[in-house]
Amino acid sequence: MGRPSKGRAIPSATPVIIMVRPQLGENIGMAARAMLNCGLSRLRLVAPRDGWPNDKAQRAASGADVVLEQAEVFDTVAEAVADLERVLATTARNRELAQRIVTPRHAAGEMRDWIAAGEGVGILFGPERTGLVNEDIVLADTALSIPLNPEFSSLNVAQAVLLVAYEWAMAGDASPVERMSDHSTRPATKEELQNLFGHLERSLDQSGFLRHQAMRPAMVNNLRALLQRAAMTEQEVRTFHGVIKFLAKHKHDEE
Amino acid sequence: MGRPSKGRAIPSATPVIIMVRPQLGENIGMAARAMLNCGLSRLRLVAPRDGWPNDKAQRAASGADVVLEQAEVFDTVAEAVADLERVLATTARNRELAQRIVTPRHAAGEMRDWIAAGEGVGILFGPERTGLVNEDIVLADTALSIPLNPEFSSLNVAQAVLLVAYEWAMAGDASPVERMSDHSTRPATKEELQNLFGHLERSLDQSGFLRHQAMRPAMVNNLRALLQRAAMTEQEVRTFHGVIKFLAKHKHDEE
Repeated sequence: MGRPSKGRAIPSATPVIIMVRPQLGENIGMAARAMLNCGLSRLRLVAPRDGWPNDKAQRAASGADVVLEQAEVFDTVAEAVADLERVLATTARNRELAQRIVTPRHAAGEMRDWIAAGEGVGILFGPERTGLVNEDIVLADTALSIPLNPEFSSLNVAQAVLLVAYEWAMAGDASPVERMSDHSTRPATKEELQNLFGHLERSLDQSGFLRHQAMRPAMVNNLRALLQRAAMTEQEVRTFHGVIKFLAKHKHDEE
Repeated sequence: MGRPSKGRAIPSATPVIIMVRPQLGENIGMAARAMLNCGLSRLRLVAPRDGWPNDKAQRAASGADVVLEQAEVFDTVAEAVADLERVLATTARNRELAQRIVTPRHAAGEMRDWIAAGEGVGILFGPERTGLVNEDIVLADTALSIPLNPEFSSLNVAQAVLLVAYEWAMAGDASPVERMSDHSTRPATKEELQNLFGHLERSLDQSGFLRHQAMRPAMVNNLRALLQRAAMTEQEVRTFHGVIKFLAKHKHDEE
């Protein structure tokens, strides 16, 4: 069984996931996998029902072995949180305790701040089916509640770990919310686009598609607006030139 | 096998989760459970490997049976998306296609807008291990990429469904990011708190704790700041009065 390291020689750069009295090895393994996907690796287990290590956890971890290998095991919640300054307890229902309750998204921002201040942070997840009891919760300072469907609230513990870990990752994520895929080509310039417009409109004039002079401006503008919206790359513009040329050159009756 | 309903008699109020060539029944069941937790219930399956219905899916759905019962099955992705106006394709890696790529959080906001405009929205999830192929992706208009640990990226398909569904739920969620648990008591007023300060400080004066007159103001203020931070409820203030009273009345030497 592991014990928390004394002193602060190595700053805690990430929160600790603490599974309290976990029942199924598969859930521990899936939680480890969820953690690693989100950049977390510190796992503590309090009195796992089937002991430790656990083959089922190993199999379900699917490559997240490093998390299981480093997992620390404790007999009690009190021991598991002893070296931490901030502890959140996940809870699904109201209790008779007066607690500050936050969403995972809000907690993620706070956790980032606490970690940046050099404080140890842990998050308690309770046993499947029963969840944390009051005696566990009062060892934490904040309750964490995932705001999902109140009419059907049955997140698996590994899924709860995933959501909390995901919010942690997103709170530190600076990737753009929207981007174009990396590509060997570049967006077309407006000049390239205007050349394409010209080519298309000349062909359409010659083929008779734009013969109604009164309607021509509106039809031309509609086509231009459509092509603008496509946000074409330089390569796509060249491809489109080819499409127009071949359709025009190789006239055929459509079946 | 189901077919999408024609016409728009019933507006699509939520996005459709579309699992393409799913391999394991357990994953379909877990995805259904994840969906229902997040207020989603519309599931479509394209060529599920083990056919449909599927016992393993049923067992893993753990109460989310309604999602499985209403699931529609199609032979191809093209048929599964035919009635939708907006389709996103989840993808984990760069491709040779020029695509607009968004995060689940950004997509959630857009999906809310599309749904509000009466448009049908679908999200494609690929088969375990291999993911969607280009032929699937070009039937969608937008790619969706979950910005997680690039060094270990192995989300289970049901976990990917959970994260996307969670972001959908959060985009429509108006619950406070931080609150006190529902409780039969109320926060103490400042007058109640000042009465508590008075009681505590008189007792501490009488017991000699505050005998150093030069230090008294700072010590009193530190205690007051601490008690303020506790954000005590009216009931807690009353309890604290009792604690002070009993400690003061029943003097004892500590062992």
